[in-house]
Amino acid sequence: MKARIEVMLKDGVLDPQGEAVARALGSLGFEGVGGVRQGKLIELDLAAGDAEAARAEARRMCEALLANTVIETYRVEIVE
Amino acid sequence: MKARIEVMLKDGVLDPQGEAVARALGSLGFEGVGGVRQGKLIELDLAAGDAEAARAEARRMCEALLANTVIETYRVEIVE
Repeated sequence: MKARIEVMLKDGVLDPQGEAVARALGSLGFEGVGGVRQGKLIELDLAAGDAEAARAEARRMCEALLANTVIETYRVEIVE
Repeated sequence: MKARIEVMLKDGVLDPQGEAVARALGSLGFEGVGGVRQGKLIELDLAAGDAEAARAEARRMCEALLANTVIETYRVEIVE
């Protein structure tokens, strides 16, 4: 099974990467850019036999390693 | 309009971040983890008036700054 995991900073947590992107876009002449948030996208191939098992394993991976749940949220999607 | 941009390394381009994640998951006891690829997820608020204009502007941003199109692919999605 293939899992896609999105990890984003929680709302309200300062996102210096996103702010740097917003400033850089402005300096390149792009106007009308409001908030920019940058997160991580992780694609994993898992040996789990079915989608529910893969989802549960991916969530355990997020809690253990992939996301810092104090400041980040994550979303797991099983794509195939 | 809100745009979501996914930037991933192209297939065949070495992904040391992904490999580090795979090794770390293995050392935490997660078995059956195959390939891991890590990319960026960027959410932008754009002032563009309609979805097509927002999509075109987001693609220009990718070409100019957000993706290194030599080694990365990007995908733009307009979500609202």
